[in-house]
Amino acid sequence: MSETSQKDHPAQPDIKATRAKMTFGPGEPLTLDCGVQLAPFTIAYETYGTLNADKSNVVLVCHALTLDHHAASQNPVTGKPGWWNSIIGPGLPLDTDRFFIVCQNVIGSCMGTTGPKEINPRTGTAYGLNFPVITIADMVRAQAMCLEQLGIRDLFCVIGGSMGGMQVLQWASAYPERVFSAIPMATAARHSAQNIAFHEVGRQAIMADADWRMGDYIAAGVTPSKGLAVARMAAHITYLSEPALHRKFGRNLQDREKVTFGFDADFQVESYLRYQGSSFVDRFDANSYLYITRAMDYFDLAADHGGVLANAFRNTKTRFCLFSFSSDWLFPTSDNRQIVHALNAAAANVSFVEIETDKGHDAFLLDEPELFATLNGFIGSAARQRGLA
Amino acid sequence: MSETSQKDHPAQPDIKATRAKMTFGPGEPLTLDCGVQLAPFTIAYETYGTLNADKSNVVLVCHALTLDHHAASQNPVTGKPGWWNSIIGPGLPLDTDRFFIVCQNVIGSCMGTTGPKEINPRTGTAYGLNFPVITIADMVRAQAMCLEQLGIRDLFCVIGGSMGGMQVLQWASAYPERVFSAIPMATAARHSAQNIAFHEVGRQAIMADADWRMGDYIAAGVTPSKGLAVARMAAHITYLSEPALHRKFGRNLQDREKVTFGFDADFQVESYLRYQGSSFVDRFDANSYLYITRAMDYFDLAADHGGVLANAFRNTKTRFCLFSFSSDWLFPTSDNRQIVHALNAAAANVSFVEIETDKGHDAFLLDEPELFATLNGFIGSAARQRGLA
Repeated sequence: MSETSQKDHPAQPDIKATRAKMTFGPGEPLTLDCGVQLAPFTIAYETYGTLNADKSNVVLVCHALTLDHHAASQNPVTGKPGWWNSIIGPGLPLDTDRFFIVCQNVIGSCMGTTGPKEINPRTGTAYGLNFPVITIADMVRAQAMCLEQLGIRDLFCVIGGSMGGMQVLQWASAYPERVFSAIPMATAARHSAQNIAFHEVGRQAIMADADWRMGDYIAAGVTPSKGLAVARMAAHITYLSEPALHRKFGRNLQDREKVTFGFDADFQVESYLRYQGSSFVDRFDANSYLYITRAMDYFDLAADHGGVLANAFRNTKTRFCLFSFSSDWLFPTSDNRQIVHALNAAAANVSFVEIETDKGHDAFLLDEPELFATLNGFIGSAARQRGLA
Repeated sequence: MSETSQKDHPAQPDIKATRAKMTFGPGEPLTLDCGVQLAPFTIAYETYGTLNADKSNVVLVCHALTLDHHAASQNPVTGKPGWWNSIIGPGLPLDTDRFFIVCQNVIGSCMGTTGPKEINPRTGTAYGLNFPVITIADMVRAQAMCLEQLGIRDLFCVIGGSMGGMQVLQWASAYPERVFSAIPMATAARHSAQNIAFHEVGRQAIMADADWRMGDYIAAGVTPSKGLAVARMAAHITYLSEPALHRKFGRNLQDREKVTFGFDADFQVESYLRYQGSSFVDRFDANSYLYITRAMDYFDLAADHGGVLANAFRNTKTRFCLFSFSSDWLFPTSDNRQIVHALNAAAANVSFVEIETDKGHDAFLLDEPELFATLNGFIGSAARQRGLA
């Protein structure tokens, strides 16, 4: 989710990506949890590798809140390498020589898939707040429609971190017979009160911007840049850890010997945060931020299954491998462990690894050797069980 | 710092308070760290109890970021009881039958002491950003001037939590021979990178408000309410703990059976945060928030002593008692323990207690029995050593 993640990546060359969009017409609506039939709608996606003859080598990569489908290709907006270049590629855990990897921009986002910044066909102007509120289940339903259109029913693996991990859990719960293996990382089966609170701060920051215009800023030709930047700054702190911030910045001053007794970015950490805020505004839509944070807030897999999380996975045959990161305080190990306990209660096949790192929540995007090795082992073993060469 | 703290308090009757203001004229400037001579200036303060004949029973209470001098009296703005009613009063640890207790509103604040909302005599309009940037040392220097004017040189005790604890450390370091005992709580000897980051988010939220007007909102007859509310919401999360938020709110909905698929405050935690934000705006000045957060960011007692924190306390005779709170992630136990280590290195007389609680940073304001008992013991013992009946 963070820009740092890109810098900390080993520089992998971008691999061959097929970039595409798929549009569903007025007669092929997406049925949303809120009751709305959304049509038409478009899904932007990328694929890497080759679909095998029996279509048994499909890996679905699910992205986090502010990421996109450019998981292993240069981002056309920022020019940066794919956000999971460290995981996807020849010889890497998601081996493009073996697997057919699909990554779709989620419904409600702003990178090509239909979201609040697209034109509402009923009005001829951008949806804004007329876009229906979407859920994690809606994202997954849209992904399934796109895959079915590609002739794909079954997934060898579905993998993702943070909100991507919520989608993984939703996939395994909603389509258990279609998911051979599932890898939720740095995630939770329900968004916590503290996380809802941080999201609400971000939304209020956007809505407080006079240029938000009740969501109709596109028609007005303005952008709630300041509010969106503040939202990003607050969120960005939660993606890191206190030890990592201390290690990277401490109380170091930014290009100066002494404090200035003013409100400039005297400290490196302030300068860094301001950069995170301002660069985010260049690549993300403020209303999409409202909608996608709301989808995460609403996620509560146990509530959808009579209050018992294990019921979400009853009789599952899916092989699970979960990862948490020791310094992640946004989706702490305890949140991930709750999922493991529910899977155990459902007698599921489950592995769980807590990766020791000081890099916080964003660690799932970074180059963590233990993550890499464990992923390699789990995916290799699952591939053998699936009969993939 | 939070409104909740008031609700969680046992209802102590307000005790007799003497409310006063002291003004220093053009010839009695406050010398600030930034080089400015601030004059004139006013200090608003309260006292409880009676000064004894040899003036040996003075306790200085130092307040936190957004609090005030109404430590044990009804707040004239909010109508709420004093924020430390649980500690100050007859028979309580800060026993008004034994001690003469002084609490001053810090310089830069907005409750009666001179700050950016007061009139700049040079221009005839509110200072706004023309107010000089102040530091924790400046706050303490102003407190000392006010006490000297009251004929008080020596303090039996100086006590405070959070930013109040920073002032306690500054007092003990700057005036070691005047401080008999010192009680810093839930604090740090230097503001961490993560805390600077959270403060910067709050400042940017205020400055992003179109009604901030580069700090000149008073002249314009407006208030940056939305930005200040967002700043408060973000900060408020840091005053609590994830377990406390989970216990108090979890994912409970606010006066509804189902989520609304919209951006209303569906969840109780959202409603609570919005209330925190909007009620804060009624009692606090946005520019004061900028200035006081900056003072905390700049606080680094070791840096002021050649990089060695122990040097700040060299040859101290002061008796110290420190408190941290196990679920406080804003000023975690490790920050407090660093101070203890430095005091040990300086061969100081020091006690340290980590209070087990899930209430987070705000626990220092709440009714924690172990805090109460330990304070009672330490203050009673120090009083005997000081020869106070």
